Amino acid sequence: MAVQTIRWDNGSLIIIDQTLLPTQYSEIALDTVEQVWHAIKTLKVRGAPAIGVSAAFGLLVALREKRPGSREAALRELHIAADYLATSRPTAVNLFWALDRMRGVADASPAGEDAAGLFRRLEEEALRICEEDRKVCRAIGEHGAPLIAEGAGVLTHCNAGGLATVDYGTALAVMFRAHELGRTFQVFADETRPLLQGARLTAWELMRAGIDVTLICDNTAAQVMREGKIQLVIVGADRIAANGDTANKIGTYNVALIAHAHNIPFYVAAPFSTFDRTLPDGSGIPIELRDPAEVTRGFGSQTAPDQVKVYSPAFDVTPARLIAGIITEKAVLYPPFTESISRWL
Amino acid sequence: MAVQTIRWDNGSLIIIDQTLLPTQYSEIALDTVEQVWHAIKTLKVRGAPAIGVSAAFGLLVALREKRPGSREAALRELHIAADYLATSRPTAVNLFWALDRMRGVADASPAGEDAAGLFRRLEEEALRICEEDRKVCRAIGEHGAPLIAEGAGVLTHCNAGGLATVDYGTALAVMFRAHELGRTFQVFADETRPLLQGARLTAWELMRAGIDVTLICDNTAAQVMREGKIQLVIVGADRIAANGDTANKIGTYNVALIAHAHNIPFYVAAPFSTFDRTLPDGSGIPIELRDPAEVTRGFGSQTAPDQVKVYSPAFDVTPARLIAGIITEKAVLYPPFTESISRWL
Repeated sequence: MAVQTIRWDNGSLIIIDQTLLPTQYSEIALDTVEQVWHAIKTLKVRGAPAIGVSAAFGLLVALREKRPGSREAALRELHIAADYLATSRPTAVNLFWALDRMRGVADASPAGEDAAGLFRRLEEEALRICEEDRKVCRAIGEHGAPLIAEGAGVLTHCNAGGLATVDYGTALAVMFRAHELGRTFQVFADETRPLLQGARLTAWELMRAGIDVTLICDNTAAQVMREGKIQLVIVGADRIAANGDTANKIGTYNVALIAHAHNIPFYVAAPFSTFDRTLPDGSGIPIELRDPAEVTRGFGSQTAPDQVKVYSPAFDVTPARLIAGIITEKAVLYPPFTESISRWL
Repeated sequence: MAVQTIRWDNGSLIIIDQTLLPTQYSEIALDTVEQVWHAIKTLKVRGAPAIGVSAAFGLLVALREKRPGSREAALRELHIAADYLATSRPTAVNLFWALDRMRGVADASPAGEDAAGLFRRLEEEALRICEEDRKVCRAIGEHGAPLIAEGAGVLTHCNAGGLATVDYGTALAVMFRAHELGRTFQVFADETRPLLQGARLTAWELMRAGIDVTLICDNTAAQVMREGKIQLVIVGADRIAANGDTANKIGTYNVALIAHAHNIPFYVAAPFSTFDRTLPDGSGIPIELRDPAEVTRGFGSQTAPDQVKVYSPAFDVTPARLIAGIITEKAVLYPPFTESISRWL
C-alpha cells in the first residue's frame, strides 16, 4: 500500500507533513499559496517530482484564494503565483517544469473562457500531472527492478521514495517493484544529514513495505561497501543535465565516488521531467544553500559552538562518468548519456 | 592556551566531560575505577591517546579505592583493574599500551616494597605517560606544521585535538603549530556522526584557538574538495598496523577515498603508541559496534522509526595505499610504511 504524499481532495491540497515523520503521521491542508511555498521551502513536502506536483496544485490554491473575476485576472494571478512558487527551491527542475506546463495550458486557453472555465482546465492539467507521476513512477520501478539481483545489497541516499513523488517513488520504486516480484534483498539507507530524510523517511517507507532495511550514518557507506554488503547503489535526482551530470541531495557525489572505488554500479532513477537539456553539463546547476541551524541545532539540542561557520549546500553534482545508468520511465539509459538522453527525450 | 583534558590533581583524576561540550564546559572527578571505565565507554573522555592516559590514572584510582594492604594485594588489584579497563573500548591500542606499561612497572617493582611505595612508583609512571603525551603532541605539531601551506584549506574528521590527548592533540596539533607560526589557513571540520565530535569538539577547539574553521556535514566533504577548497586532509588514528593500515573514527575511510579521487594528500597524525606491530595489516583490528540509539536518538529527539535496524561501527580502516604520510613525534613517515615504520620504531 503506497503512501499518498499529495492529494487534491474536493478542491483542497492535502499533503503529508514530512517534517513530523517518522514519529508522527499527519496530513495538512494547504489553503494559501504562501502555505504551499512555505511547505516546499521547509521540506514539509520534498523530492523533485513531489515539489513539481505540489506547485501545480499550488497554482489552483492561489486561484481559489484570490478569486479572480475574469480570465485575464486569473492569468495575471496565475503568473504571479507561478513566479512566487518558483522561488521556493532553486535546484529541483521539476518545479519549473510543472509550473511551465500549467502556464502553457493557461496561456493557450480560449480567450473567451471565464475564470471558472480556466480553473477547471488547470485543475484537469494538475490532476493529469499527478496521474502521470503515478504511472511514471511505476514504469521506473518496472524498468529498474531487474537490476536488483536475488540476495543483493542496495544502498540508497536521502529519500527518493513515495514521499518524494505522488505515491511510489523513483529510486525506491525500483525496490518496491523488486519486492512485489518476490525478490529478497537488503537495503542500506544513508541517514542523510542534515535533515535525515534517509533515517526519517526512507527507513519508514521501506519498513512499511516489509523490505529489509538497515540504517547507517552517511560516513559508514564506504565501510559497508568494503564489507561486501552492497552490490548496487540507486539514488534519485533533482536535476540532470544534457550530458548526464546529476544534481541530487548533498552526499550523493560522496556515495558515487566511494561506489566507484569499490567497483559498485551507481544508478540514478528519475523521470524525464528531471532532465534539463538547457544545461550542457552540471556546472550550471544552481546549488541551494541551507540554513546553518539545520546543522547546528537540527534535532532539538545544540550540537556545535555558538557562531560557528557552517557550509551547508543542499545538493551536489555527480559527474556522468560515475553513473552506470539512469533509470527512467521509458528505459534504463546507459553511457554515453548525451546520446542516450537525446535519443529518448 | 591549550585545554586540560585530563589532570591528576592531588590524587584525584579530573577530566573534562566531553559529552557536554560545546554548550557546557564541566570538569568532573573520577573517584572509582567504574567511573573511569564508564567515562571511557560513554566518551566523556575519548581519543586514543587520552584514553591511554586516563586508563593509566584509572589504575591509581583503583588502588586509592581498594586500599590494598600489601604489595601483593596491590598487584592483584592493579591487574584486576587493568583487565577491567581494557574492556572499555576495544579499538584504541593506546589503551592497552598504557595499561601494559603500568603493569610492567608494577611487576618490576622491588619485592620488598609496601603498597604505598608501589603506588608512588605507579603515580610517577602515570605522570610520566601524561608528560610524554604533552611532548609527543608538540613534536607531532612541529613535524606536521610545514605540510600546511600559507592559504591552504585543511579537512579533518572527528576530533584528534587537545581533547583527544592530554592537551594539544595530534591532527589538530599540526594546525595549532602552523597557527602559532603565523600561518593563515582554513579548516573544514566534518561533524562526524553519530556523536558529532567534529561539530562539538573540533569546531570548539579551533574557534577557541582563533583558527578559521567551517563546519560541514560528513557527506559534504566531496563537494568541498571539488570546489577546490581543500589542499590536504589530516586525521588522527586509533590503531595503526605494521603496514600503515589505520583504524580511525568511522567515516575516515570515506574521506580517504574521496581525497584520493581528488588527488588531495591524506595524512594521519599519531604518536608511536598508536602503532600495533603485532598486526601485519588492518584486517585484524577489532571494530567496536556502538549502540543504535546513538544514531536514532542522538540529538534529543527520535530521528528514525521505532525498531529500525542500525549498523553503527565506531571505526573503519583506511588502507595504507590511501595515506600520503603518517605524522609522528619523530618524523613524518612516508610509504612504503612497512619500511618507514620499522625504521623509526
